[in-house]
Amino acid sequence: MAENGFQGALTYIYDPAILLRLTSFQAEYKNGVTPLNPGETLKLRPLCLEDYDKGYLQLLSQLTSVGDVTREQFEDRFNKMKACDDTYYVTVIEDTTSKQVIGSATLVKEQKFIHRSTARARVEDVVVNDSYRGKQLGKVLVDVLVSLGRELGCYKVSLECKDHNVKFYTIFGFEAGKGQNYMQIRFFD
Amino acid sequence: MAENGFQGALTYIYDPAILLRLTSFQAEYKNGVTPLNPGETLKLRPLCLEDYDKGYLQLLSQLTSVGDVTREQFEDRFNKMKACDDTYYVTVIEDTTSKQVIGSATLVKEQKFIHRSTARARVEDVVVNDSYRGKQLGKVLVDVLVSLGRELGCYKVSLECKDHNVKFYTIFGFEAGKGQNYMQIRFFD
Ligand SMILES: CC(C)(COP(=O)(O)OP(=O)(O)OC[C@H]1O[C@@H](n2cnc3c(N)ncnc32)[C@H](O)[C@@H]1OP(=O)(O)O)[C@@H](O)C(=O)NCCC(=O)NCCS
Ligand SMILES: CC(C)(COP(=O)(O)OP(=O)(O)OC[C@H]1O[C@@H](n2cnc3c(N)ncnc32)[C@H](O)[C@@H]1OP(=O)(O)O)[C@@H](O)C(=O)NCCC(=O)NCCS
Repeated sequence: MAENGFQGALTYIYDPAILLRLTSFQAEYKNGVTPLNPGETLKLRPLCLEDYDKGYLQLLSQLTSVGDVTREQFEDRFNKMKACDDTYYVTVIEDTTSKQVIGSATLVKEQKFIHRSTARARVEDVVVNDSYRGKQLGKVLVDVLVSLGRELGCYKVSLECKDHNVKFYTIFGFEAGKGQNYMQIRFFD
Repeated sequence: MAENGFQGALTYIYDPAILLRLTSFQAEYKNGVTPLNPGETLKLRPLCLEDYDKGYLQLLSQLTSVGDVTREQFEDRFNKMKACDDTYYVTVIEDTTSKQVIGSATLVKEQKFIHRSTARARVEDVVVNDSYRGKQLGKVLVDVLVSLGRELGCYKVSLECKDHNVKFYTIFGFEAGKGQNYMQIRFFD
């Protein structure tokens, strides 16, 4: 265990040290939940290469279709994301007792030329394992990502969500983009 | 001039060869406009490092605030985007007579673990210089990006746009994401 509480031996997708600098890391939620201590056996941290064996993809399948992804494909994708510096902030919560990843949310940073060549960021793929819902874990994850977006110098953080989650995201200050429309073309599922 | 019609001496943000493989590159629009020949003196190509001197940022300022960006900052941003392999497909149209960039649109690819660890893509920052509007150039740019998204293996291509541009994007097959909401938190302009 390194000094900062993150295990040195693990391969993180981004440097966990940045989490400790976030103002939201000092926040406290209902029932004493904090980002540093989201629950007795729970640990919030960046995604690790080792999470293939900790049910990471099974967790994502509670959000949408994942399909068969071999370990090799997972590692390849993880490494490609990591090679894309300062872009993929995949953040998870592990239950260290069961050694299962039980929550995940990703901040993706997009570099821009506009707005003084700063950046914007998006909250993507937010999911909490259904047996762990209602314990403030979704809130901790999204709060951490929003303050991460601010820390990374983004001019805005945005997301797309289903109707029934709009209320959840207003908690964090997200507002429907006035006169803004989300549109898509889907090629496959 | 290299065999494929793209100048070898320029520093492209992505390999122009991929454009020639797109089905939309064979399309023909009103008045004989095609992606290969969008106008007598016009050339569609990836953004180049050299475009700082061709009014690229002035063009973007017709879309939104850009602010002061020095050449060094531009080159730094360009190189960071380029280093992020297979991500930033900034595509422009130059008027080779005036040596000005007069149109631009960007496809940003986001790698995923979900959907068999494929990817999604977004159309961003679409703008045509106001003296060149109504000449099918916006159409060519967006069509090229949509087929690029397909070619790159993305399961969907999406965008956000203002109310008055919704009709424009339906031309390409974009549909309002049913029950999907766009939300944002803005930190600065
Ligand atoms: C949405 C989701 C991530 C919320 O996670 P969670 O850990 O259960 O949420 P929390 O316990 O942190 O909830 C925080 C607060 O938001 C509220 N909340 C949670 N989901 C909500 C929703 N859909 N609408 C309104 N409020 C909601 C909770 O009641 C709680 O309120 P409280 O602080 O007053 O007690 C979780 O339900 C989930 O994984 N859903 C399936 C996947 C999904 O839809 N993801 C979002 C994709 S856009
Ligand atoms: C939107 C924009 C890129 C369109 O570029 P353009 O080169 O003028 O468009 P095109 O000539 O390719 O238009 C193609 C077709 O779309 C139509 N069209 C263009 N803008 C439209 C709009 N806002 N609503 C509906 N149709 C539109 C044209 O009439 C044309 O129809 P036609 O093929 O039947 O003649 C350009 O107006 C622009 O730069 N606007 C300012 C920046 C902006 O709003 N960008 C979009 C951000 S989401």
